[in-house]
Amino acid sequence: MLGSKIIKVSVQDVRFPTSLEQHGSDAMHTDPDYSVAYVVLETDNATLKGYGLTFTVGRGTEIVVCAVKALSSLVEGKTLEEIIGPEKGVIHLATAAILNAVWDLWARVENKPLWKLLVDMEPEKLISCIDFRYISDALTEQEALDILMKAKTDQKSREEQMLKEGYPAYTTSCAWLGYSDQQLTQMIDANQRWDVNEAITWVTKLAEFRPLWIEEPTCPDDILGHASISKGLAQFGIGVASGEQCHNRVMFKQFLQASALQFIQIDSCRVGSVNENLAILLMAAKFNVPVCPHAGGVGLCELVQHLILFDYICVSASLSNRTLDTLVKCWKSLCGSISFLKVTSGELLSRSMIYKCHRNPSEGILMFSVERE
Amino acid sequence: MLGSKIIKVSVQDVRFPTSLEQHGSDAMHTDPDYSVAYVVLETDNATLKGYGLTFTVGRGTEIVVCAVKALSSLVEGKTLEEIIGPEKGVIHLATAAILNAVWDLWARVENKPLWKLLVDMEPEKLISCIDFRYISDALTEQEALDILMKAKTDQKSREEQMLKEGYPAYTTSCAWLGYSDQQLTQMIDANQRWDVNEAITWVTKLAEFRPLWIEEPTCPDDILGHASISKGLAQFGIGVASGEQCHNRVMFKQFLQASALQFIQIDSCRVGSVNENLAILLMAAKFNVPVCPHAGGVGLCELVQHLILFDYICVSASLSNRTLDTLVKCWKSLCGSISFLKVTSGELLSRSMIYKCHRNPSEGILMFSVERE
Repeated sequence: MLGSKIIKVSVQDVRFPTSLEQHGSDAMHTDPDYSVAYVVLETDNATLKGYGLTFTVGRGTEIVVCAVKALSSLVEGKTLEEIIGPEKGVIHLATAAILNAVWDLWARVENKPLWKLLVDMEPEKLISCIDFRYISDALTEQEALDILMKAKTDQKSREEQMLKEGYPAYTTSCAWLGYSDQQLTQMIDANQRWDVNEAITWVTKLAEFRPLWIEEPTCPDDILGHASISKGLAQFGIGVASGEQCHNRVMFKQFLQASALQFIQIDSCRVGSVNENLAILLMAAKFNVPVCPHAGGVGLCELVQHLILFDYICVSASLSNRTLDTLVKCWKSLCGSISFLKVTSGELLSRSMIYKCHRNPSEGILMFSVERE
Repeated sequence: MLGSKIIKVSVQDVRFPTSLEQHGSDAMHTDPDYSVAYVVLETDNATLKGYGLTFTVGRGTEIVVCAVKALSSLVEGKTLEEIIGPEKGVIHLATAAILNAVWDLWARVENKPLWKLLVDMEPEKLISCIDFRYISDALTEQEALDILMKAKTDQKSREEQMLKEGYPAYTTSCAWLGYSDQQLTQMIDANQRWDVNEAITWVTKLAEFRPLWIEEPTCPDDILGHASISKGLAQFGIGVASGEQCHNRVMFKQFLQASALQFIQIDSCRVGSVNENLAILLMAAKFNVPVCPHAGGVGLCELVQHLILFDYICVSASLSNRTLDTLVKCWKSLCGSISFLKVTSGELLSRSMIYKCHRNPSEGILMFSVERE
């Protein structure tokens, strides 16, 4: 079925009125309507479709939809064995939506959940999915291959561990609710509001609360600014986390080269889907920076869980200082494919949750509410 | 007339079939159809309109048009005294198109060409047009004001000089035509094709030809990569130039902080129009890096000449190592508002040209061919 031809790309602008109750609001986005550009790939096999999406906070979803239509011709008429590549902005979001659908389709063809498709893939094949252009000064193909080969050790046992124990997660609603638990690990999030020196000043004032990290302290494009903030906060043991607005692997490369982040927050839709995230996971491993994915948005938990499982089983081989963001609010009503083994006091975060691994590809990020229409 | 209300934003997707003869083609863009999203602002005064555009190489213009429509509601119903602000990607291009039209409208209201509007504006007023968010660690409002105040000295004589002598320019067709003149200053352009180490290796091989600069040697997002290339080429006296794909002031800030560029190539449409370019001109002045604008595209010469005249008269007060890109191919057929005093052997570039300053606002970047329809 890898030879199935994609005969049609359809895209829908799906919006949820989350602003009515200010769900997902933050310092920068005061009235988001969580939304997706939802992509369905139809193939010449009527029983085989691929589902993808990218996430926005509402305004501009129609522009992403327009961009998906503009890119559709690159996919229509192609088989899974052919296909495309990305860069930045709206085009990158549209690329993510389409390529996420292509990966979903591929997993369905193999009758596996995406994480398992990745875990079972040979290192050479994985490497062939990565565009090394512009990152070869930080990670060569050979270095990437070496990381994957080294992580072959105990890979099976880590896979079994994940199936049995799941992956640790946290929810940002911790912070919203102001739990009084003294054991609670605090993370703070500035949502890009500060200039560089303001960020250092404000977080220094909060140092007594010993936050694990300050997330998005300033403009997400400001690599050197994040490096200054990291340097200024190191004496307090406070790390800097960012990535949900980081638009491509070249930016992640520089954040790593400049020691600007102590936690890398990949996002499944912001960069060019699985392919580009593979490059980022491998660079993070080389620079020894833990990956804690961002997933606060429609469908993001559903997509990124596969990447972080792959990271643990095949790349980083570590759970140390790692946790997966999750958004409890939306997943029940929208998508059917994440579930939790338990809500518990985890190693890293006291109010943490444990993601349960999928064992089949049947749900993915297919949106029942849309498909029924 | 500053109180005139903008009652309608219209936008058109205007494409020129430049790919037929490969005009404007480069290593990265092999078949561009030079295109614009062309914006007209209608006001409640039937005789007063503003004209703006942003430039693309064809594919995706419809997405920018879609983005302009999405942003239109931020402008419609507003007077010139109100109005908006930018960030990145397609949204930034759309913002540029709309804000360029707003500045055009403002110049018409004042009955001046844009450069003269800027030159006559008080430093405090100019500063109020700049968003200092995210750049205060590199340039404070006070520092910006100091730069403008210092350049008040001899401002009048520089304005008179420009009116009489014009601004020096060059055309990239020099390079295409392979002039044999030994005096020709060479600039080379990689159009983003190389990885960091490749760029250093290749340009080192070309060092004997003593190029003034290597333009866009690698990914335009790679600040640290450009810094490495600058360092690697400094021994040969070869500078690094970039900016036409640099998406906002935060990126320019970092290129300057990292000593990554020796020539800053602003573009009138890539960032958020005049407002954001004011910030970039002032940062370049603070870091003492010459600005040599990029203008190879539809309408870019017409727009950016105003900014570089302002830079010379009110900011940098220097022509040293400065020259303005120009695209002779398109300007004759499309727009009516640039002209040249002479084509000559200039100080910097042997095949250079001299821009003639406008003295009235009547043409701007109004496109006769579109307006006639």
